[in-house]
Amino acid sequence: MIVEMAKNASREQVDHVVERAEFLGFEVQLNFGTEKTVVAILGSETGKTSTDIFAVLPGVESVSRVMKPYKLASREFNPRSTVVNVRGVEIGGPRVVVIAGPCAVENEQRLMDTASAVKACGAAVVRGGAFKPRTSPFSFQGLEKDALKMLSRVRTKLGIPVVTEVVDIENILIVAKHADILQVGARNMQNFALLKELSKLNHPILLKRGLSATVTEWLTAADYLLAEGNNQVILCERGIRTFEDSVRFSMDLSSIGVIKRFSHLPVIVDPSHAAGHSAFVPSLAKAAVAAGADGLLIEVHPNPEEALVDGLQSLNFPTFEKLMAELKPIAEAVGRSI
Amino acid sequence: MIVEMAKNASREQVDHVVERAEFLGFEVQLNFGTEKTVVAILGSETGKTSTDIFAVLPGVESVSRVMKPYKLASREFNPRSTVVNVRGVEIGGPRVVVIAGPCAVENEQRLMDTASAVKACGAAVVRGGAFKPRTSPFSFQGLEKDALKMLSRVRTKLGIPVVTEVVDIENILIVAKHADILQVGARNMQNFALLKELSKLNHPILLKRGLSATVTEWLTAADYLLAEGNNQVILCERGIRTFEDSVRFSMDLSSIGVIKRFSHLPVIVDPSHAAGHSAFVPSLAKAAVAAGADGLLIEVHPNPEEALVDGLQSLNFPTFEKLMAELKPIAEAVGRSI
Amino acid sequence: MIVEMAKNASREQVDHVVERAEFLGFEVQLNFGTEKTVVAILGSETGKTSTDIFAVLPGVESVSRVMKPYKLASREFNPRSTVVNVRGVEIGGPRVVVIAGPCAVENEQRLMDTASAVKACGAAVVRGGAFKPRTSPFSFQGLEKDALKMLSRVRTKLGIPVVTEVVDIENILIVAKHADILQVGARNMQNFALLKELSKLNHPILLKRGLSATVTEWLTAADYLLAEGNNQVILCERGIRTFEDSVRFSMDLSSIGVIKRFSHLPVIVDPSHAAGHSAFVPSLAKAAVAAGADGLLIEVHPNPEEALVDGLQSLNFPTFEKLMAELKPIAEAVGRSI
Amino acid sequence: MIVEMAKNASREQVDHVVERAEFLGFEVQLNFGTEKTVVAILGSETGKTSTDIFAVLPGVESVSRVMKPYKLASREFNPRSTVVNVRGVEIGGPRVVVIAGPCAVENEQRLMDTASAVKACGAAVVRGGAFKPRTSPFSFQGLEKDALKMLSRVRTKLGIPVVTEVVDIENILIVAKHADILQVGARNMQNFALLKELSKLNHPILLKRGLSATVTEWLTAADYLLAEGNNQVILCERGIRTFEDSVRFSMDLSSIGVIKRFSHLPVIVDPSHAAGHSAFVPSLAKAAVAAGADGLLIEVHPNPEEALVDGLQSLNFPTFEKLMAELKPIAEAVGRSI
Repeated sequence: MIVEMAKNASREQVDHVVERAEFLGFEVQLNFGTEKTVVAILGSETGKTSTDIFAVLPGVESVSRVMKPYKLASREFNPRSTVVNVRGVEIGGPRVVVIAGPCAVENEQRLMDTASAVKACGAAVVRGGAFKPRTSPFSFQGLEKDALKMLSRVRTKLGIPVVTEVVDIENILIVAKHADILQVGARNMQNFALLKELSKLNHPILLKRGLSATVTEWLTAADYLLAEGNNQVILCERGIRTFEDSVRFSMDLSSIGVIKRFSHLPVIVDPSHAAGHSAFVPSLAKAAVAAGADGLLIEVHPNPEEALVDGLQSLNFPTFEKLMAELKPIAEAVGRSI
Repeated sequence: MIVEMAKNASREQVDHVVERAEFLGFEVQLNFGTEKTVVAILGSETGKTSTDIFAVLPGVESVSRVMKPYKLASREFNPRSTVVNVRGVEIGGPRVVVIAGPCAVENEQRLMDTASAVKACGAAVVRGGAFKPRTSPFSFQGLEKDALKMLSRVRTKLGIPVVTEVVDIENILIVAKHADILQVGARNMQNFALLKELSKLNHPILLKRGLSATVTEWLTAADYLLAEGNNQVILCERGIRTFEDSVRFSMDLSSIGVIKRFSHLPVIVDPSHAAGHSAFVPSLAKAAVAAGADGLLIEVHPNPEEALVDGLQSLNFPTFEKLMAELKPIAEAVGRSI
Repeated sequence: MIVEMAKNASREQVDHVVERAEFLGFEVQLNFGTEKTVVAILGSETGKTSTDIFAVLPGVESVSRVMKPYKLASREFNPRSTVVNVRGVEIGGPRVVVIAGPCAVENEQRLMDTASAVKACGAAVVRGGAFKPRTSPFSFQGLEKDALKMLSRVRTKLGIPVVTEVVDIENILIVAKHADILQVGARNMQNFALLKELSKLNHPILLKRGLSATVTEWLTAADYLLAEGNNQVILCERGIRTFEDSVRFSMDLSSIGVIKRFSHLPVIVDPSHAAGHSAFVPSLAKAAVAAGADGLLIEVHPNPEEALVDGLQSLNFPTFEKLMAELKPIAEAVGRSI
Repeated sequence: MIVEMAKNASREQVDHVVERAEFLGFEVQLNFGTEKTVVAILGSETGKTSTDIFAVLPGVESVSRVMKPYKLASREFNPRSTVVNVRGVEIGGPRVVVIAGPCAVENEQRLMDTASAVKACGAAVVRGGAFKPRTSPFSFQGLEKDALKMLSRVRTKLGIPVVTEVVDIENILIVAKHADILQVGARNMQNFALLKELSKLNHPILLKRGLSATVTEWLTAADYLLAEGNNQVILCERGIRTFEDSVRFSMDLSSIGVIKRFSHLPVIVDPSHAAGHSAFVPSLAKAAVAAGADGLLIEVHPNPEEALVDGLQSLNFPTFEKLMAELKPIAEAVGRSI
């Protein structure tokens, strides 16, 4: 941590900063410039310490970090890339893993049809929402536990892993029983009470990026999941909130390169929620694979016109099939398969 | 809802939109322009309906709302401004209600000292965090239930209402037992599972604005709280996430005017979390009162240097006292007291 | 344009809106809902009219557009995709056009070396800054007219077109004399005085997206360039300003799909300025090609360590050569060449 | 500047950073932590130097600033607050200066009526647009030089200073002849060619904040104006671009406190362009005065329904008069007059 003293800071104020840092067990080095004094506070634990502890002291102008605030998710902590194994499907390995299915589970037949269709096209995992966190209380909220059972039967019949969202602590165990990957939604990325409970599980977790979370905050949230030893964490970029209004969220594909540099965790991309419109999904899906994403999360519905949730952003079977065919040469162009 | 058809949309496509709307029970009026056909879908329930239901149909170019997606929180639904009564303290009435106290409860003596001090300066409610949702798992997470008991004893001794945050469903009842107002934090504004449970209570709720929530989304989240009949909802503006980096969050004071126009709910302002630095709190607090806020939520600590959480943004007793003295003439200038 | 009247609007207020619209020559259709009256104002010229003209009238709740505010840049106006021919290099055709070179021209030898190197790797156009709009007045401002002459000599020697930025009206003609494409920088996207002058030229213009411009505003700025008949406009996505701080700007690749749907103009991508760091450029460049971009604008410097401007985001010759090799199969995967 | 070396950086890489810094004339201090080496580069000129110069060197993880990138606009450079004297009206002194008038000059009679009305209510300066930078080329672009002459005659008749926008270098002298303050619009805040020319003048300049400019970038743009000795610079906050869609721009009143702390320049606030709707202007105007703004810039029109530009955000005479009466006690509450 680097503490910049104000131009007119007194020697006593500098000493006060030094004492505080040494009290906390850090090394300190002083840099006396002609205009300002700079105090370097060093040690591997400084990343875990709030900069406020020093910023609040008299005579301090500003404090900046040297160590990142996340640790367990960092590549410095674990230089080898993590591969999450979901019943034999490896996320973070050479294969680009496509997860596809309906936004919400609507009934068993439709789920089965969709799961079969996406599997036939090359999807490796099936998605389907059981608990639906909706912006409005008047919207369809999901079939909840009934949907979990449908997902469970589909995975048994088709032999394909399934992912679904968990929205509260109370339902963690039942979701974990029926699903292979537990998804934490964007709006819950900093629901720390939920993250702490999930951290105790030994189950793959898909952590969606919060809609206004920086990559640093996202990786720090991942630290919550990793804190109790669960290391099966998959990140999912799904677009961020910006001023742009032609799409629902602005897909931030630069996060792929940033995560690959600073973290060991695999990262997949959800083009459906970012675009908010099926017309823009294929372009973003292709871009994500070219950018180096480890997988995709794509909404598919047999008849988007009839979908109860997010039909506008869902691909139908023919467009999904076409997209999968188009993705294959791109995956190969970046040295991967699909 | 206004459905704009594409320039080359066929008559069959227009009819399809009309049928869908009529099937849902809406009135429809067709507008045939020289370039485009526009379908107006009318009725008081259209606000509750997703625009996607029409946007997904073939030949549709775009869909825009006429009715707002929130209903119960709207001034159209309830033209009279709501006043929330918290043990005799009215929020939304002529008095500007100042809520003050430490970010986190650290120990009982310090809480009592702070509560006494802020009460003596004119604060009407005491705040204190028991469960602390922290960005990093390595940060202090609050004294939890012990803190609730301390808050409870302070309110009994001083006869002043208290507010504290609730972070999960499991602890709703115990928080409701010890606190007069339950706060939903910014990161939980769209934790719909939590909101649904709180809606069943008969207890004032302070709903902080999500850090990237539009005012419309915020009022739609308030609809979740209001849906089961609890009408004691107080909104709290606390700054939004933007590109500006000289403060922690950009205080959006235009939300005060917007809410007063479109909603009947009272709205207070938290300058401490927005600023992130005590030096900027007084300026924002004064601005909030002048803008028409119904109250303020201010962090105060006997010794910010020693605070376990957010010391940098906390006022000490003398600066809080000075601010309260400065706020009084501003409140009077806008026809209120403090 | 759709004018939504307030719930309690009088018949006189509705009539007033109708009169105003008819006075402006528009068709009007009235929709009387049970709760609200909606006035549809139709006609191909409504897109050019400010919504404020109606929003300001008494009894009006809100006004929304049906027609987009841009016209000449729209695909409705010109359904066939525009191909800009720059001395034989087609931008917007099947070839993905790579434009490469130094951020700023530093001296003739270095420019010539760089131009030769990027041409050898497959770049079709050379870039080089002569006038440099810098955030700080203390930074290097470019070699100005000397740089223009160097660019001119390089294009003659190597037979390759060049692009450089024009920053004021005064220098338009001299820039047009020495360069094949005139670039309008992001900070000048809404410098309308400059756009109006450029509109009178018969010269390809590269219009960078403003750092906080929506796609709609960007296309409306393009309308300024197209207004006098110059139809040789190339758009350039270069990242938008968001809260994310791990890169300089957040690359918005969803704009590619949006532009391809709503506009006929070609669009290229500048990954260098978005990333701000050479480590992230290859990932974004590949993503852009996969997303359907018509070209790339990449900064290359023989020795980024020594660059006077933006060295951090410049590729050196070996990394550029490697990137070009990696881009080829991606271009082929999307049915194009490079 | 603080250079953080990567964990595995070699001693040679550290030495390379040191040599580069010493070559540029800076002092260097090395801090060897157990995990990382940190190089402190000190000296008053480091603020003017790009961080990229060091970030690009091998073995460097990141570089952060200690000195701010602006110098002349900083309070460190000039501890005394600047007061700009505009023909006897002091901006930055005890009086809150209200500048009011129409968005665009439409005709002389209407301008004179408006100027007289706002002067009678206490406005100290009259505004009126001559050159109008409009988002769409199809919108009214202003009366240009005719409007300048009208402004000139109004100031002579009423004895009140006037402000108008300058949009290009070509017209600087004529605008300076007819107006007392030259306004640089938000979209030109980083039109550095224009700023450089204005810097040569001895004339007050009103520098509006760019719509996505940080306060730091804004003050750095002010450095361009101050670089040639012109010290009559007034800043104007006018809202920033965010995701919020209920107002045109999000007014960032935290900038007032930040500027007062870090800069000596006066700062005024334009609530009209931020709100985009007259209903929200009074609340924001009052908040701005309470926050400590040195003045206001408010759009007033005799009949907003008839305004050619931005009628929706203009106050009419009675609402402006009412607002001025409401502002007076707020100004007094913060120890100022109006």
